[in-house]
Amino acid sequence: MRHFQVKFASAAHEVWVGAGLIGKLGRLTREAGLAPGRIAMVTDSNVGPLYSELASDSLRASGYEPITIEVEAGEQSKSLEVLATLYDRFVAEQLDRNSIVFALGGGVVGDLAGFAAATYLRGVPLVQIPTTVVAQVDSSLGGKTAVNHHHAKNLLGAFYQPRLIVADVAALRTLADREFREGLAEVIKYGAIMDAAMLERYGASLDRILARDETAVEQFVGDSLERKAQVVTDDEREQGRRRILNFGHTVGHALEAAFGYKQYLHGEAVAIGMVEAAKLSIVCAGLSPAEAEQLSKLIERSGLPTAMPPQWQSEEFERALKLDKKRSDKAVEFVMLEKLGRAVLRRLSFDDILDNL
Amino acid sequence: MRHFQVKFASAAHEVWVGAGLIGKLGRLTREAGLAPGRIAMVTDSNVGPLYSELASDSLRASGYEPITIEVEAGEQSKSLEVLATLYDRFVAEQLDRNSIVFALGGGVVGDLAGFAAATYLRGVPLVQIPTTVVAQVDSSLGGKTAVNHHHAKNLLGAFYQPRLIVADVAALRTLADREFREGLAEVIKYGAIMDAAMLERYGASLDRILARDETAVEQFVGDSLERKAQVVTDDEREQGRRRILNFGHTVGHALEAAFGYKQYLHGEAVAIGMVEAAKLSIVCAGLSPAEAEQLSKLIERSGLPTAMPPQWQSEEFERALKLDKKRSDKAVEFVMLEKLGRAVLRRLSFDDILDNL
Repeated sequence: MRHFQVKFASAAHEVWVGAGLIGKLGRLTREAGLAPGRIAMVTDSNVGPLYSELASDSLRASGYEPITIEVEAGEQSKSLEVLATLYDRFVAEQLDRNSIVFALGGGVVGDLAGFAAATYLRGVPLVQIPTTVVAQVDSSLGGKTAVNHHHAKNLLGAFYQPRLIVADVAALRTLADREFREGLAEVIKYGAIMDAAMLERYGASLDRILARDETAVEQFVGDSLERKAQVVTDDEREQGRRRILNFGHTVGHALEAAFGYKQYLHGEAVAIGMVEAAKLSIVCAGLSPAEAEQLSKLIERSGLPTAMPPQWQSEEFERALKLDKKRSDKAVEFVMLEKLGRAVLRRLSFDDILDNL
Repeated sequence: MRHFQVKFASAAHEVWVGAGLIGKLGRLTREAGLAPGRIAMVTDSNVGPLYSELASDSLRASGYEPITIEVEAGEQSKSLEVLATLYDRFVAEQLDRNSIVFALGGGVVGDLAGFAAATYLRGVPLVQIPTTVVAQVDSSLGGKTAVNHHHAKNLLGAFYQPRLIVADVAALRTLADREFREGLAEVIKYGAIMDAAMLERYGASLDRILARDETAVEQFVGDSLERKAQVVTDDEREQGRRRILNFGHTVGHALEAAFGYKQYLHGEAVAIGMVEAAKLSIVCAGLSPAEAEQLSKLIERSGLPTAMPPQWQSEEFERALKLDKKRSDKAVEFVMLEKLGRAVLRRLSFDDILDNL
């Protein structure tokens, strides 16, 4: 079990990583100083049947009164319409300012329930219980919450920090292979932008990770969250350094969008985006071709795609690239690697990007 | 013209109070460090025709490209549905992270546009240009943004500070008498809870204020905003001292709600609420009957109601009182006066309140 604290300027919270932690949720929530009372457990139709009873039982044993709110699994639940149904339930169940919202699930549930917690009564306590690799290593930490607009993903949201994160790595056992692997893209990302040694450790234990050995998994989840905490505590609202976390995401987001979010999972698109960003880094940031190749091999060994699809050139792709919300004016801030373990930001025109893919 | 800075832990912003400031909006916005580019001016069907061209012309002269978004005047625009139409326009106009949202209007526009700014792309710069007394002395400062849920007012929202507040007291000239007077309730509130001397000055210049003498009006708007800034900078998220700003609001909110938001304007309900809170303060907090009477007289002289309506006792009133979002459990934190100029918080049961009205 690993445990550390994330300290922002205005507040701090605990992070727990380990196997079997959902069964200890009640105790961890009490230890985080969150008062007993009525609480809402937001989950989805995949995760709810597997873990919500375990979580609720543990909470009840510690004096909480959970009600469960299950949304349909999938990205389509990250909408203003589903958000409105959460508000309706919160009101119907008379949740008040002290009522905690628990987000039990992957990135969709974390973003949706997080945004609901951020905005119900102008903010109630939020606890993240991520159950996918992407959520455990990335989206549960840092306070980004959002729903989608029909024109763009994550267009509506708030920065809102959870009061506690409980990452139960045993929950990853029930993930489908493809969902498990997509999360590894974000793990590789932390190594690539911040820590070459972590990348080596990851490569060395990759076979055990793919076999979902709990000790190996606990290590890379903990490593990833600690790296992410380093970056976001320096820059809570993404004014500067935090942008390096978008490594691979500019092209990745555009790929996801251009294919209507059907062809690629997020992590798969980011995997390709990282390979492309590494190629651009050779030209624009001095990354050695050998290191770019090393990164690409590691992505491939993780069971992730590394090549742009043959039919990537399209109006949809170009439009999606320009709609990326990190853009300002006609250029984009692009994350590159000087070497493995060190990221830099460079302003690139859209044409420069398109010409080099 | 008055000018001061509001300093929060994480950020600071300027406040300008004076006659004719809308015509100087472009310059003030530039001075606040907000970059030129496309911006959205959110206003309503009452205020837009009067002031949006003046504001837009000034912004254009300073290099901004304003688009105007007009919502229907009235509380019904403070809804998730209207909020969604703002998001749609922001997307259609390709507003990006640097695009400023201006809220030109009263409390409804400030709350609605403020919430949109807080949540579009997880937050874009917000400028408040309040045009009613309530908005100028109260709601524009402090970062509370919200829309209503069909079950309760201001149920959904965020704490989000503006980057600039420009209160043009000349805009108050076009207000109807009843709207002008309702705002005076909040002015009286600041004096009652924080500053007996301010209350005396207010009483002494009341005739000039009611005649809308610009110098007198500028003084009370400036005095009020400075008092509010004192409280909210100590307690940005209403964890403690900021709650004293709810003086008169517990009963006030319940009255508004019980009569379906039709009989009373917000300030009128708060006026009655303050008189009732003062009566309770005699019993529970040691306020002298003479001071309670002094407060009540000042409210009356301001053209505001001071008595509960004969038919106030109803299920609706009781339900509304219990739904007040400051409640926790079965009791409510009630703001009382020890003396004029000094507020204290007391926990009261609902029965205690109902028995004493």
